[in-house]
Amino acid sequence: MSESPFVANGLITLSTDFGSIDPYVGAMKGVILTRYPAARLVDLTHQIPDYQPQLAGFWLARIYRYFAAGTVHLAVVDPGVGTARGMVLLYAASQVFIAPDNGLLEPVARAAADARWRSFSRQDLNHLRLPTPSRTFHGRDIFAPLVAEIASGKQSPETLGRVELRPIATAERMERMGHGHIVWVDHYGNLITDIDSGCLERFTSPVLCFRDQQILLRQSYGFAAAGELLGLVNSWGTLEIAVAQGSAQQRLQAQSGDAVWVVEGASVEPAAG
Amino acid sequence: MSESPFVANGLITLSTDFGSIDPYVGAMKGVILTRYPAARLVDLTHQIPDYQPQLAGFWLARIYRYFAAGTVHLAVVDPGVGTARGMVLLYAASQVFIAPDNGLLEPVARAAADARWRSFSRQDLNHLRLPTPSRTFHGRDIFAPLVAEIASGKQSPETLGRVELRPIATAERMERMGHGHIVWVDHYGNLITDIDSGCLERFTSPVLCFRDQQILLRQSYGFAAAGELLGLVNSWGTLEIAVAQGSAQQRLQAQSGDAVWVVEGASVEPAAG
Amino acid sequence: MSESPFVANGLITLSTDFGSIDPYVGAMKGVILTRYPAARLVDLTHQIPDYQPQLAGFWLARIYRYFAAGTVHLAVVDPGVGTARGMVLLYAASQVFIAPDNGLLEPVARAAADARWRSFSRQDLNHLRLPTPSRTFHGRDIFAPLVAEIASGKQSPETLGRVELRPIATAERMERMGHGHIVWVDHYGNLITDIDSGCLERFTSPVLCFRDQQILLRQSYGFAAAGELLGLVNSWGTLEIAVAQGSAQQRLQAQSGDAVWVVEGASVEPAAG
Repeated sequence: MSESPFVANGLITLSTDFGSIDPYVGAMKGVILTRYPAARLVDLTHQIPDYQPQLAGFWLARIYRYFAAGTVHLAVVDPGVGTARGMVLLYAASQVFIAPDNGLLEPVARAAADARWRSFSRQDLNHLRLPTPSRTFHGRDIFAPLVAEIASGKQSPETLGRVELRPIATAERMERMGHGHIVWVDHYGNLITDIDSGCLERFTSPVLCFRDQQILLRQSYGFAAAGELLGLVNSWGTLEIAVAQGSAQQRLQAQSGDAVWVVEGASVEPAAG
Repeated sequence: MSESPFVANGLITLSTDFGSIDPYVGAMKGVILTRYPAARLVDLTHQIPDYQPQLAGFWLARIYRYFAAGTVHLAVVDPGVGTARGMVLLYAASQVFIAPDNGLLEPVARAAADARWRSFSRQDLNHLRLPTPSRTFHGRDIFAPLVAEIASGKQSPETLGRVELRPIATAERMERMGHGHIVWVDHYGNLITDIDSGCLERFTSPVLCFRDQQILLRQSYGFAAAGELLGLVNSWGTLEIAVAQGSAQQRLQAQSGDAVWVVEGASVEPAAG
Repeated sequence: MSESPFVANGLITLSTDFGSIDPYVGAMKGVILTRYPAARLVDLTHQIPDYQPQLAGFWLARIYRYFAAGTVHLAVVDPGVGTARGMVLLYAASQVFIAPDNGLLEPVARAAADARWRSFSRQDLNHLRLPTPSRTFHGRDIFAPLVAEIASGKQSPETLGRVELRPIATAERMERMGHGHIVWVDHYGNLITDIDSGCLERFTSPVLCFRDQQILLRQSYGFAAAGELLGLVNSWGTLEIAVAQGSAQQRLQAQSGDAVWVVEGASVEPAAG
């Protein structure tokens, strides 16, 4: 699939909507470690909002660059579990991503220059001799043993299922042009948008807009007075609205899906960029 | 105790009611890794409802089969800490389970065909040279070093304390007969009962009953329309009430302890089984 | 810096205010494991209240003794991220502690007899060839690669930055004398104070005071009737107010910062000590 073969490094990341109260993630880890006792496991998050696979993809597309070549990422947000929905493998940046085929991995495919898709079904896994899967927990019964096989180097991702020649969408034009939405409210109450910070180059003195409010850009939280509303380029390369040492979510009563955009400001404040 | 001696695989699972806010689990891990640096640790859950040891047992009895022979499971839900309550070790399915002697491990003993009990007190651990334990945190001061010794193979579970010939209760008859209770509300709002799915075989067209409501059985969440109330056999082998892409807990205002039972239905809908 | 050189054991603990919803901790782990694949990682807590670095220090000062010599502790509660705030390394008890220079590590310095400070800036890390750091996430971009280098033994803590001869405050006199504050409300609702239990020696029959209420000391939760309000020496060596199998926080409507003190009681109840 790619020029060079995948060489697993033994590391597996996990992203789900299982939460941390129920022991569901623990059961998946048991399956992985039974098949591949030397696996190294890293939890990315298990708090993806229920049934919103695209948010797992949003984060994976930003986090994979902090992991080494050879890492296997498993993401399970799977409202269609037990139905005929397929499964996909994405190979990008010398890393492997596995998920239900429900759009979850599309942000990763858009972010990585060299993404290649493969699709597979349960029949393609017959050689792994999985126990009969439950109807409702394929994360444990199908995905967990599969990533164990790939991360241990026993299953090549290059021979799983079949190649899919999916058109990889070019990055969303609007988001590059300075229009986008809040996609994640983090636990500080910071409002993370999908607006690529690269759009700021097109402005002399960019200012963020939210509803009828203009918000100045700062270099970091610490450059604003405590309680001040500010915009900034966050550490993931997107635009963000925050309140210094406070919650922008509470201040603005904002939520995921709300529109944010950039305009040319008349402000005399120095803007980041 | 069992025919073949226990061979530890270095894996330790942890189940507690400590939550994830306080650093109590981290302190236990420090103690384990100081005694046994190569230990592999898996968190099952630290969100067992406070003071309800039987719920830790409910999950352990369902999860242990996803772990390999040689695993050591430590469960600490310990309202009697600091008093004279004893400690127990259960050996089953070539795995070891350790907990306070407060009923926590009874569901595991019922689930495993070959369960054998041992009981022990702090005096039985003198050879481990534990520091003087605190009055309130035996998870850190007694259980953590003990499981490190067992998982590292230095302490044989076969020689700890003394054999207990406890009658192992046969599985609860009512639950097998199609009567039981909600025992866990998961973070999706799914209502997990203790009714063994095996009871469905006794019915032609089984239907779940909750209060005055009859609930049809489906094969999986994805077979119901979004928002529809359904019953199903969950991935743990018990009956469950759910709302597709929603919360059955909110819909029914249900809670742990509420009764659920199976009846013969007149429905023409195909039922799971 | 200390008599004997630091010998890393490969273990890294993490304490932050990042919470468990956002995948920020996962990104830090990716960076660490990319630089040092054999690192062993332990989460202490990621639920330090936002912007309260001293609480991360409160816990580190109590937990480090459960970790082996050679452990590296990273704590990131960093409201000043992106500004000119410095960074510090503390060497104590043959362990290394790394944090922003904002007071976080002071409780550790007070707790350890042999604490030595070093301070460093980003320029002192040039030889590590870090990528250009973001303005807002130095935990991932600076601290994570640094602790990977130290825990792997490639960066000696003895040669990082420069020695700081900081006066190490003697333990707070008031807290030793039996006056202090609630510093942490744990998830059971237990009220953990900073009052050192050693102060009890100065009393014949000590009693805790909270507002206008006197609270008897017990040996452990299990020695009080369910629902009873009690004081005790907790497993961290400080005084604590609890309700047996209930929440002292709810009973007393108490919160962090509230005053607690010890007085000589007239009670005939046996007191702990």
